[in-house]
Amino acid sequence: LTQPPPWGINTNIRLTLPVVCFVWQIAMIILFGVFIRYDEESDTHWVETKAHDNITSDIENDFYFRYPSFQDVHVMIFVGFGFLMTFLKRYSFGAVGFNFLIASFGLQWALLMQGWFHSLDPQTGKIFIGVESLINADFCVAGCLIAYGAVLGKVSPVQLLVMTLFGVTLFAVEEYIILNLLHARDAGGSMVIHTFGGYYGLTISWVLYRPNLHQSKRMQGSVYHSDIFAMIGTLFLWMFWPSFNSAITDHGDGQHRAVINTYLCLASTVLTTVAISSLSQKTGKLDMVHIQNSTLAGGVALGTAAEFMISPYGALIVGFFCGIISTMGYIFISPFLEKTLKIQDTCGIHNLHAMPGVIGGIVGAITAAAASESVYGKQGLINTFDFTGDFKDRTVLTQGGYQAAGMCVSIVFGVVGGAIVGSILKLPIWGDPADENCFDDEVYWEVSEPESIPPILEYNNHMIHKQQDL
Amino acid sequence: LTQPPPWGINTNIRLTLPVVCFVWQIAMIILFGVFIRYDEESDTHWVETKAHDNITSDIENDFYFRYPSFQDVHVMIFVGFGFLMTFLKRYSFGAVGFNFLIASFGLQWALLMQGWFHSLDPQTGKIFIGVESLINADFCVAGCLIAYGAVLGKVSPVQLLVMTLFGVTLFAVEEYIILNLLHARDAGGSMVIHTFGGYYGLTISWVLYRPNLHQSKRMQGSVYHSDIFAMIGTLFLWMFWPSFNSAITDHGDGQHRAVINTYLCLASTVLTTVAISSLSQKTGKLDMVHIQNSTLAGGVALGTAAEFMISPYGALIVGFFCGIISTMGYIFISPFLEKTLKIQDTCGIHNLHAMPGVIGGIVGAITAAAASESVYGKQGLINTFDFTGDFKDRTVLTQGGYQAAGMCVSIVFGVVGGAIVGSILKLPIWGDPADENCFDDEVYWEVSEPESIPPILEYNNHMIHKQQDL
Amino acid sequence: LTQPPPWGINTNIRLTLPVVCFVWQIAMIILFGVFIRYDEESDTHWVETKAHDNITSDIENDFYFRYPSFQDVHVMIFVGFGFLMTFLKRYSFGAVGFNFLIASFGLQWALLMQGWFHSLDPQTGKIFIGVESLINADFCVAGCLIAYGAVLGKVSPVQLLVMTLFGVTLFAVEEYIILNLLHARDAGGSMVIHTFGGYYGLTISWVLYRPNLHQSKRMQGSVYHSDIFAMIGTLFLWMFWPSFNSAITDHGDGQHRAVINTYLCLASTVLTTVAISSLSQKTGKLDMVHIQNSTLAGGVALGTAAEFMISPYGALIVGFFCGIISTMGYIFISPFLEKTLKIQDTCGIHNLHAMPGVIGGIVGAITAAAASESVYGKQGLINTFDFTGDFKDRTVLTQGGYQAAGMCVSIVFGVVGGAIVGSILKLPIWGDPADENCFDDEVYWEVSEPESIPPILEYNNHMIHKQQDL
Repeated sequence: LTQPPPWGINTNIRLTLPVVCFVWQIAMIILFGVFIRYDEESDTHWVETKAHDNITSDIENDFYFRYPSFQDVHVMIFVGFGFLMTFLKRYSFGAVGFNFLIASFGLQWALLMQGWFHSLDPQTGKIFIGVESLINADFCVAGCLIAYGAVLGKVSPVQLLVMTLFGVTLFAVEEYIILNLLHARDAGGSMVIHTFGGYYGLTISWVLYRPNLHQSKRMQGSVYHSDIFAMIGTLFLWMFWPSFNSAITDHGDGQHRAVINTYLCLASTVLTTVAISSLSQKTGKLDMVHIQNSTLAGGVALGTAAEFMISPYGALIVGFFCGIISTMGYIFISPFLEKTLKIQDTCGIHNLHAMPGVIGGIVGAITAAAASESVYGKQGLINTFDFTGDFKDRTVLTQGGYQAAGMCVSIVFGVVGGAIVGSILKLPIWGDPADENCFDDEVYWEVSEPESIPPILEYNNHMIHKQQDL
Repeated sequence: LTQPPPWGINTNIRLTLPVVCFVWQIAMIILFGVFIRYDEESDTHWVETKAHDNITSDIENDFYFRYPSFQDVHVMIFVGFGFLMTFLKRYSFGAVGFNFLIASFGLQWALLMQGWFHSLDPQTGKIFIGVESLINADFCVAGCLIAYGAVLGKVSPVQLLVMTLFGVTLFAVEEYIILNLLHARDAGGSMVIHTFGGYYGLTISWVLYRPNLHQSKRMQGSVYHSDIFAMIGTLFLWMFWPSFNSAITDHGDGQHRAVINTYLCLASTVLTTVAISSLSQKTGKLDMVHIQNSTLAGGVALGTAAEFMISPYGALIVGFFCGIISTMGYIFISPFLEKTLKIQDTCGIHNLHAMPGVIGGIVGAITAAAASESVYGKQGLINTFDFTGDFKDRTVLTQGGYQAAGMCVSIVFGVVGGAIVGSILKLPIWGDPADENCFDDEVYWEVSEPESIPPILEYNNHMIHKQQDL
Repeated sequence: LTQPPPWGINTNIRLTLPVVCFVWQIAMIILFGVFIRYDEESDTHWVETKAHDNITSDIENDFYFRYPSFQDVHVMIFVGFGFLMTFLKRYSFGAVGFNFLIASFGLQWALLMQGWFHSLDPQTGKIFIGVESLINADFCVAGCLIAYGAVLGKVSPVQLLVMTLFGVTLFAVEEYIILNLLHARDAGGSMVIHTFGGYYGLTISWVLYRPNLHQSKRMQGSVYHSDIFAMIGTLFLWMFWPSFNSAITDHGDGQHRAVINTYLCLASTVLTTVAISSLSQKTGKLDMVHIQNSTLAGGVALGTAAEFMISPYGALIVGFFCGIISTMGYIFISPFLEKTLKIQDTCGIHNLHAMPGVIGGIVGAITAAAASESVYGKQGLINTFDFTGDFKDRTVLTQGGYQAAGMCVSIVFGVVGGAIVGSILKLPIWGDPADENCFDDEVYWEVSEPESIPPILEYNNHMIHKQQDL
């Protein structure tokens, strides 16, 4: 009678999940043992480095330039992304918990992958890490968490870990191509993080299309308190986005300017998001989905140009249009994607990351191409676009072209990578939930009683029993 | 039959809200285009400034002195104020969401208004902004968010935007008078932020008095989880208040001392708040309203004196009395205000901001008047009170007088400004809710089902149907 | 008929709580007045100090090295510990609120106690405080909050205040012995904070053993939303733990390295926690209790060694085993402790703090003993272990021995101190709840209606009345 469930509906992950966690973590330890070392600013030999380089004060350690931003980014990754996805009525454990799991794995793997591609020391064969490496690892993880948004509630934690393994790998490669080979600038990752992550997730969701997802319709949508939990995620993302876009920009004016631009851009996005959201309802009521998501689109879209001299009103303009486009995406494009293109995008990452990411890439390309010595100053232009070494003769127009090329690379990596990884995830071995059990924490979590409202229960029971007595 | 509702009960904001958002945001873009530029520390020409001013390291950029405090203040504005107001059982969307909206508009308008009054460059006609401008804009917004607390649940988002437009304008003028003309010190804004914002909101609430507000009595008060959400707001305000009071104080000892004073003062406030709250109930039970609000009064009351040499035990004393006074305000004064003065103060901002703000102004005046070279040191006294330029001959006694004068200015601006703006908001065109629909998110938000408790529902239905079968 | 309840079941704290709060706060004010002063970096005389010490920039003020870490630690104390304990279905007010109260008192008392032991100026008889003192006070408080976890829901706020008074006192003494006399290193407090706090709380809980605690069984366990609130605590602890372990380490590479180590260690812990949690259930489902708590064990266990050259893979290894051991502690050891040793440990602090703290002490001793000049560099070794002054001839092996001795001291102080304080708390005068009322906010808080679900209530009532009509 109790037959083993057919492949694909067996959500028992008692074997696969522990095995993957243990094996991968042991692999991380071995690879870290072989490759990863402290860099000169986090090593006890820093005292000698200081003497050698005539550094007079410990405050010159890169740690003090970047640590506050790093912690903000860290909050965005774990609280921001995690809580943003708690909006579903019964998938908050999965939202916060699996986000926690895959980010924790992803950042280790990212340190290795990004290390091999960006900072492998040819002499020692080692990767030397410091606070900037931690930020980059968090950034890399962000790409995978964006992708998680598209498949939220429809995959198993094992699938998520696989998705993260490949996602980080693809990320490191496309990042290497875009930043190192094309020498494009993308400090806040409009292209390398958001565009890539968005299309990676959307393509995976497309491959994993579930025609009968309506069977779990009762679990879709939010409840009052889950919407408020999600606002915790929204606000921490929104507030700390200036840190995100400035975390790895140049010391001094570079970080300063990226903060100002992002701060302004996001403020502008809020107003147009509210406007379109209100317009979309008969009586002008606001939709929480829009407020939770589209208000963030401006931060995404300024990921590339935040460090440029886009000027304060330029930042406002970008935010203005992103709020409009992203909100309209939720109203018009998401239903279209689901119906026509068969892309089920749980969190609407197309509207929050993919589309604004592409806008960000375009804005970056245009702003770069329009840069001039009169605005930036001679040295300022060189510093901002890093026109040094092999690239010292590059013109801003060429730079604009390479920026545009970078955006295409990120899309291609997202789509092709997503298609391949999606196919792997389609194998019936990963313990993903049946259509009728999607968006339900009960599948992978020990869930306690739904809500303890003894008084109401008691009151009703009391009434019921009173009637029975009658 | 379905007549259009009479003026004032038509809560359809589908026209007004989008129009206001769009028009004002476009105005912001144009005004920013005309007036706002990066300052020399956030401009790519910083490299030249550094060379010119013999600055040896990027770490000297003001960004690194103020950015951690700025982010803390930013969290206070959006998460702190937003979540503090989620305590009502069914107005959390409005609390967090409208707070988000008006802060996002307000900070843009504040950059312009404060720029025109404080930092308009006479030669270029431009306003140059940096991280300190962002902090000041957030501060200015805080004044309006305080005012929001008095009218929470009783106004439409359009009214809130109007209130913010005028609030920021009034703020910039009173701030100019207090800080520039009177040369009073008010780093944490006891006077310019809290006293002004408190009386501004209270007066508006007085003008908008609703005699039949009891009709929405069922929506007043909290539920268990809404009280916990509100504690998120409380704690982030409480924890980051040292950053608030030190964000724009002098580099070095100024910021350092303001943090210590605020940290101590707030700790002291918690104990006396708990004591009075416990005393107020027959069996010594604590009231969440007090814990959520009065614990913060110490931070408000040290807004002026935080940077002074008030000494650690002085800070404790201020906190000691603020906890007592604020909690007793909730117990005795709020009911009196509502009954006798017809001021309906949803969040009790009189007890959390207005009264402690006035205390803060008085403490500041006394501490300034009592300052001495023996305590401050000769240069320390000059630095702390900025006795330079036109004010180099001012004595501490005179300074104390001007501090007191500054407090009066903030009260006058709050009351008079609030009366005028309140009259404007009384016009029956803003879509505010009917008395019986106050404190209800359903008026302005698409609200999902209240809580998904299928099992309980199912259980009860099951019992009901079982009975029916009987 | 309405007799006064017998001793120990009278939970009326209307006299005791206000008296304790007022008297202790007044005592704090007096003691602060006598002893506490600003240190030279937070005093207005800093301008003279700068000139005297040839300090060229305000950025050299210790404030800028430590303030970002301080604020993160502050968040951990109030939001981290507070929300971590909200997991119980009906004790969230007590979790967040009493945590707030005892931390606010504890930090004041800690400034005095730690000041007397560590930094009393022999000439002036004063304690000079700065930002590092604030961090140390927060650290000291952490020990008491850990202990609170063991008795959560079973004690009155007055008992908690008494527990904190003695806890801070004991902490300051053991810290003095471990750090100053034994000259052990313990920057993140594996020993002085976690081991001490853990055993202090466990022993108190053992003394206060309640054989009939099952009478409040209905209040134990979590509900869906309380588990999500607890994740707020978990994540803020987890994210900011790198700041915790680096907050008072050496400027420069010391802080930098401690962050990297803690970041990596915690990531590793998440994976093994998930693995063991999944293994522990028949179908591989995850248990929220493990995710909320055991994921943090790595941070605890690296408290001593975080600043050492444990190397990145070493940090991963520590995290790896901590995740396993802590999670297995929840599965196997906690039930054993309760059944056999009669220790009722509400939050499982044995698995989260005591055991990982001991591991941290051992890891610290081994890592210290294994330190070498070839890895650390000559000066690096001296700096890291502070082999100066009286200790300039100490070898790393001796240091390892003293580290191990330090751990024993912390255990002894925890157990003996806990036994004494537990006996005091057993006196029937503190207003603790009866067995059947444990874990219930109603005892000490004015609690509003449990949840406002009028529609469901109405729907059911509607059905009920419909039936009655039938």
